[in-house]
Amino acid sequence: MKLPHGYAFAATYAGIRQVERDDLALIVSGLPAAAAAVFTQNRVQAAPVKLCRRHLKSSHGSAGAILINAGNANCATRTGDAVALVTCKALAKLLRLPAAQVLPASTGVIGVELDPLKITDALPRLVACLDPTRFHDVAAAILTTDTVPKTAFAEIKLRRGAVRIAGLTKGAGMIHPQMATTLGFVLCDVILPTATLRKLLLRSAEHSYNRLSVDGDTSTNDTLVLLANGASGVRPDPKELPKVEDAIARVMESLAQQIARDGEGAKKFVTVDVAGAPTADAAARIARAIANSPLVKTAIAGSDPNWGRILCAAGNAGVAFDPAKTDVIMQGVTVCRNGLAAPFSEEQLKQKLDAAECLIRLSIRGKGKGTARFWTCDLTEGYIRINASYRT
Amino acid sequence: MKLPHGYAFAATYAGIRQVERDDLALIVSGLPAAAAAVFTQNRVQAAPVKLCRRHLKSSHGSAGAILINAGNANCATRTGDAVALVTCKALAKLLRLPAAQVLPASTGVIGVELDPLKITDALPRLVACLDPTRFHDVAAAILTTDTVPKTAFAEIKLRRGAVRIAGLTKGAGMIHPQMATTLGFVLCDVILPTATLRKLLLRSAEHSYNRLSVDGDTSTNDTLVLLANGASGVRPDPKELPKVEDAIARVMESLAQQIARDGEGAKKFVTVDVAGAPTADAAARIARAIANSPLVKTAIAGSDPNWGRILCAAGNAGVAFDPAKTDVIMQGVTVCRNGLAAPFSEEQLKQKLDAAECLIRLSIRGKGKGTARFWTCDLTEGYIRINASYRT
Repeated sequence: MKLPHGYAFAATYAGIRQVERDDLALIVSGLPAAAAAVFTQNRVQAAPVKLCRRHLKSSHGSAGAILINAGNANCATRTGDAVALVTCKALAKLLRLPAAQVLPASTGVIGVELDPLKITDALPRLVACLDPTRFHDVAAAILTTDTVPKTAFAEIKLRRGAVRIAGLTKGAGMIHPQMATTLGFVLCDVILPTATLRKLLLRSAEHSYNRLSVDGDTSTNDTLVLLANGASGVRPDPKELPKVEDAIARVMESLAQQIARDGEGAKKFVTVDVAGAPTADAAARIARAIANSPLVKTAIAGSDPNWGRILCAAGNAGVAFDPAKTDVIMQGVTVCRNGLAAPFSEEQLKQKLDAAECLIRLSIRGKGKGTARFWTCDLTEGYIRINASYRT
Repeated sequence: MKLPHGYAFAATYAGIRQVERDDLALIVSGLPAAAAAVFTQNRVQAAPVKLCRRHLKSSHGSAGAILINAGNANCATRTGDAVALVTCKALAKLLRLPAAQVLPASTGVIGVELDPLKITDALPRLVACLDPTRFHDVAAAILTTDTVPKTAFAEIKLRRGAVRIAGLTKGAGMIHPQMATTLGFVLCDVILPTATLRKLLLRSAEHSYNRLSVDGDTSTNDTLVLLANGASGVRPDPKELPKVEDAIARVMESLAQQIARDGEGAKKFVTVDVAGAPTADAAARIARAIANSPLVKTAIAGSDPNWGRILCAAGNAGVAFDPAKTDVIMQGVTVCRNGLAAPFSEEQLKQKLDAAECLIRLSIRGKGKGTARFWTCDLTEGYIRINASYRT
């Protein structure tokens, strides 16, 4: 897949991680890009989240560069705000940009001081190796407990020409759908005004990043940035906007799915579909309750068609629905009809549940038309192993 | 500890469990007891929960017997309502009680038909072996994935004489603090009107069962019953009521703690204390968010003083507080002061965290005076092992 025009990428090892693996990454747009972002809703917010929000505001949604480090969240530290600011300013000077056009993002351990010299010392060599093709180096550099890089691409033909979209993201734990989850960066070369970009980001995030859960914990650093630098020279007709939005939404959806697939310790990717809820919001709440239930997630890990746990989790969503009109379907097999056990071959379904992808459907028959799709993963002993010793 | 007067107990194996271990239990009060109960808030409610609520209503809070089975939740089954009613009626006939004075409770797997004949066939021998001393047989018969029976006792001297309280409970998974959690039965021989008993139960449950989490899943069968049969002949003076309430609250608190201690796969008992929140309710929400965070619970499992996860979980509680005025104290060691890393010996604290009991304190300095205490357990690979194969 071809990358969008007008962007350059770089990554290097700045000594932030304990292991020698790229931990500092840079995305630069040759032209100032229209920029929009959504952030964590956690009360505790990392310094780069606060600064990124401020920069977007003072630049009126215009960005020239994104500076990302892994290995340290730059959160709950004495010098955090200064570190974020100093490093953005140093990069702005090297790139001859206003500081407000540099967007910072960090991921890693919370509460450990981040030495700004490690970053400022590395910036000249980072800038020196900027290259329009090194997209995947950035995707690799921002990973933490992830086992694979996560990228997605799209190209659409509009009347005036083709535009391209490329997204990269990270995340495997501390993943919960409240606003943007984890770090995600989606780059387009379409011409779009910032106001349009913002609306488009909010809608797309709602049906991608906000429909994703690994462990129900919302990070302090979650940031999802959408850039449109116009380098394709293509301005969509107003009636082409839905096509652009759809392509961006599909890239975000793919990225969100890749996070669930790579959930810490996960062996299975789980899609939860809810239909027939009073509203779409109610459907999303039910789907979220199912996707967040450790008992559902461990049952999936054990290929156990334990639909009682699914119905029980749905009942905890705080949404009014009639269990006696509710069906549960696992891997296409109806295991619960009208809130009661349906006849099915336990042995055959267990085999189907051994697959790497599992689909849980909860269908409520009534007047409601609310539907929602949610992604998660199974909960295995691997999650415990990873998180009982992540920091030390 | 001496048992309250006027109660008799029995347990037997009725063939509901697959393994031959008592699964049917009976508590009888010689005198009709004032009775109050709180139930699960799950939208999906088991047949015995619905019938128990109905019986309490039609008897105006008077009960003569509690019939409990383990091994089958009698939830989401075609015949559930009929099974609950038929078995209560059969027992009422044997005991010569109005059916509404029999309170049913079930625990076990959801969605599997419960054969009423297994229970009705066992009832005559269950009634035949009623004995005022067999309290512990009941405590053992109601267990599912529990590893130990859970009981608590109190005796208080009032002006007119002594009254006794005995409680028994079960639960290790699907435990989350919304109303009563799991099954719990607290028996007193004090003389108390039903209206007083109800108020006392609500207040005591709020600070015991509702402050407890193992995995954030609220069961479909949760029931907590409080009986006062007056068999001691002791009627408290109005000014002695706080003393009675305190004793009942302490019994419930002990039972709730025992559930957290026996959490599925748990190796450590964790107390979460929050102080300085805007209100007591806000403090409870923060404490609950910490106690429910899988990342906090896995860090405790690994003896990892990862206070960033504690602060992050608190930030997700939906409560406004200033992280810059927040301290985190683990095992008495301040690990975070004013939202920033405090100096401490990692090695020494790791050793302290190896203890079987862990105390997490989150202290907010401000105008707020809200405090809350919450109990949970660590999250280990044992939880996954138990729940990936519970049903099959």
